[in-house]
Amino acid sequence: MKARVHVMLKDGVLDPQGEAVRHALGAMGFGGVGGVRQGKVIELDLDAADEATARAEVEKMCEGLLANTVIERYEIEVSA
Amino acid sequence: MKARVHVMLKDGVLDPQGEAVRHALGAMGFGGVGGVRQGKVIELDLDAADEATARAEVEKMCEGLLANTVIERYEIEVSA
Repeated sequence: MKARVHVMLKDGVLDPQGEAVRHALGAMGFGGVGGVRQGKVIELDLDAADEATARAEVEKMCEGLLANTVIERYEIEVSA
Repeated sequence: MKARVHVMLKDGVLDPQGEAVRHALGAMGFGGVGGVRQGKVIELDLDAADEATARAEVEKMCEGLLANTVIERYEIEVSA
């Protein structure tokens, strides 16, 4: 079973990496770029029996290690 | 128009961040975690007229700035 986790800074939390990218894109001549947010994506191979188990496991991983839930939000996608 | 870009190290390229996460998950008692790969996700707000234009623009951004195509691959998702 495969899981993909997106970890992004919460809205309202300053994202200097995203800002740097936005600025660089502007300097390279790309117009019309509004907000840019940069985050992490983590792909995991899991031995879970079913999708619900995998999702519950990954949620625990996010809370404990993968995301700093004070400033970050996460999304989990699980596929077979 | 919103675009989301995933930038991951190509298969075969050593991913020390992913390895560190895999090791930490094991140490925390999560069994059955096979490979872990960590990459970047970049969310962009664009002023493009349509989806095809947005995708073409983001592809240029990836080639020029967002990804190091020698060692990284990217995926683009565009939504209204």
